[in-house]
Amino acid sequence: MKRINIGILGLGIVGSAVASVLQKNAGAISERVGVQIKVKKGCDIRKVKPPCPVTRNPYDIINDPDISIVVEAIGGINPAKKYVLAALGAGKHVVTSNKELIAQHMEEILSAAEKNRVSILFEGAVGGGIPILAALRDNLSANRITEAYGIVNGTTNYILSKMTEEGVEFSEALKKAKEKGFAEADPKLDVEGYDASYKAAILASVAFGSKVKWAQVYREGIEKISAEDILYAGEVGYAIKLLAIAKMINGELEVRVHPTLVPKLHPLANVSENFNAIYVKGFPIGELMFYGPGAGGNPTASAIISDIISIANDKCQRTNVKLKSYQLKKIETIESRYYIRLQAPDRHGVLAGISKAFADKKVSIAAVVQKETIGNTATIVILIHKVAEENLKAALRVIQKLPVVRRISNVVRIL
Amino acid sequence: MKRINIGILGLGIVGSAVASVLQKNAGAISERVGVQIKVKKGCDIRKVKPPCPVTRNPYDIINDPDISIVVEAIGGINPAKKYVLAALGAGKHVVTSNKELIAQHMEEILSAAEKNRVSILFEGAVGGGIPILAALRDNLSANRITEAYGIVNGTTNYILSKMTEEGVEFSEALKKAKEKGFAEADPKLDVEGYDASYKAAILASVAFGSKVKWAQVYREGIEKISAEDILYAGEVGYAIKLLAIAKMINGELEVRVHPTLVPKLHPLANVSENFNAIYVKGFPIGELMFYGPGAGGNPTASAIISDIISIANDKCQRTNVKLKSYQLKKIETIESRYYIRLQAPDRHGVLAGISKAFADKKVSIAAVVQKETIGNTATIVILIHKVAEENLKAALRVIQKLPVVRRISNVVRIL
Repeated sequence: MKRINIGILGLGIVGSAVASVLQKNAGAISERVGVQIKVKKGCDIRKVKPPCPVTRNPYDIINDPDISIVVEAIGGINPAKKYVLAALGAGKHVVTSNKELIAQHMEEILSAAEKNRVSILFEGAVGGGIPILAALRDNLSANRITEAYGIVNGTTNYILSKMTEEGVEFSEALKKAKEKGFAEADPKLDVEGYDASYKAAILASVAFGSKVKWAQVYREGIEKISAEDILYAGEVGYAIKLLAIAKMINGELEVRVHPTLVPKLHPLANVSENFNAIYVKGFPIGELMFYGPGAGGNPTASAIISDIISIANDKCQRTNVKLKSYQLKKIETIESRYYIRLQAPDRHGVLAGISKAFADKKVSIAAVVQKETIGNTATIVILIHKVAEENLKAALRVIQKLPVVRRISNVVRIL
Repeated sequence: MKRINIGILGLGIVGSAVASVLQKNAGAISERVGVQIKVKKGCDIRKVKPPCPVTRNPYDIINDPDISIVVEAIGGINPAKKYVLAALGAGKHVVTSNKELIAQHMEEILSAAEKNRVSILFEGAVGGGIPILAALRDNLSANRITEAYGIVNGTTNYILSKMTEEGVEFSEALKKAKEKGFAEADPKLDVEGYDASYKAAILASVAFGSKVKWAQVYREGIEKISAEDILYAGEVGYAIKLLAIAKMINGELEVRVHPTLVPKLHPLANVSENFNAIYVKGFPIGELMFYGPGAGGNPTASAIISDIISIANDKCQRTNVKLKSYQLKKIETIESRYYIRLQAPDRHGVLAGISKAFADKKVSIAAVVQKETIGNTATIVILIHKVAEENLKAALRVIQKLPVVRRISNVVRIL
């Protein structure tokens, strides 16, 4: 029986869950994978109910020659980055679910691991407990992946689900999410798409064996989505979801996060509450979807411990495989279909003016629905055929100034 | 760069797909996983358009010292079993997607692999391209799995989907499935649940590290499901799916295949066409679902080649882990909720008689709906609370003989 000592930096929700699951499932784990994993030490500067022996000095773990794997469960960049680099430098393997750290400092951290001939794994950083990175790295290794996209932020999915089911506005759904503990007091990282953009960068890097510069990832949050958008999208057969999207088209990589109209028959459209799901396309597999809990102590512990077992069993030689560098495709050049909601005075010439402006910029209309008129203002919903974003924007700049248009209320991409 | 020679027994749809995908994705595979895989020889007794050098003698492959991995893509028991055992005996690793062979001869084949210190992998045997076995074996290794259940037969899922969407009867949906190429000329193996029962046995064996005797797996097909059942189940909030179910409850293993009412909000209820999906529950993960193409040359090739890569990269030490033996729980002792549809004359005393018979056997009614009366016959739909199957059957034997009951048209378990 192989014995592995690990140390855990940070004994918050995730760190404590790792320690406690390792205790509860010790028998099952050693029986199935032939490894005994012992939490030799945990580190936290707060007073915590320790699930394991505790130190307040992270270097007691980083420099302990008995410890071969360090779990980073502090979160954020500082001081997590310093400790991760120190642990790698001291020849320890590192396991983390810190998406912010991996996304923002991928190159530096992967290089440090390679230089020190140790592994760094971060399954829990994308999709929480869903084993999506292992699937892309190992189980789908026969494939040429072309797309990986999905719902990777539980908070925004909860908010959008509530808005859909109950017809409430964003602010009320956000309040509910906070009450349920699904949103932070400051929800910016989630609702503005930062969290999803970290995960998009990591997803793309593993799916395409690439180094992705997080700062180049296009990001748009859900704060502009209104109950009206959800209603009208629903009427034409779509749900609205915040998607992280990574595609490789003709050797060009695009990585972006934005609200997206998803056809109701698409499996992602039915992912509700705070669940996550990632859709993968490739050859020869065709299409796959992985669905599960995207956050939380226990699901994240499942991911972290599976990474520990991979390292203990020497099954992750390939994590430090040579990664290619890509410039991400600029959002202006990306082609998409679009949903547009706009307000117009209730008089003749409105559709004529709008359609001429679109036609002038070679933007082709797929469907138009004029919704109810309130006072003398009509709401018009327009679906646009696939077009490069720069063309659409050029048309919208013209339309915005038309006397027959009051305002363009929202523009949302369609999957 | 590691180089591996493989041989393929059987160059039908799956065997040819393996050879052709290995050609098309050679670059992507060697780049990502550092292995060059060459199809040295294929074997088929029919005249085939060879995607590789061909022999008509399987032993040219089995006894070739240059070949380290043999892919069995013949299907069925004979002669596949003989060749698989010969290959293992000759010290070759074996990869197969032959669910019938693995389910029916699991013990003999795994023992042969262990004795010869080689691996046998069979990812493609369950869920086609969905990497469910690798997930259970590796990526979820931190977990104590309690349940794994899902849609593992595309033919029956296509038939049930068509019956649901179009309101047609089984026979018409089956005809459509045959036209689409989703059902064989003799559809017995699929519609009577044999194919799903092979997969259930394999799924249970990997999920619970157990040897499962296929002959003990309870099996019921979809041939008795009528358009009426689907309609009434839909009215009370359920879809009908053929599920393969494996559960470990208090150290007791149950493995079964039968049509099942699945709540419409459950992710499995929305799996349509010929797609497959497997739902997994465990601690600490909670709940996960894997969705994808359950059959076909390309998806199966994805699974087979990923298995080949695992073996080539020495990442599957644990396939020959000690398996426990379990007696499967008898279906009579399994507890379930039930849907019952029965016909009764349209007169007083019907419900009184039925409810008394249930109450006498401690079977508790959850809901009753009396449906339309045609002539003087009323259709009654009854949902039953969780109860042991033997109690339900005892009550039904009494009810069947009641003068107020014409016939019990169908009894279907509820998830």
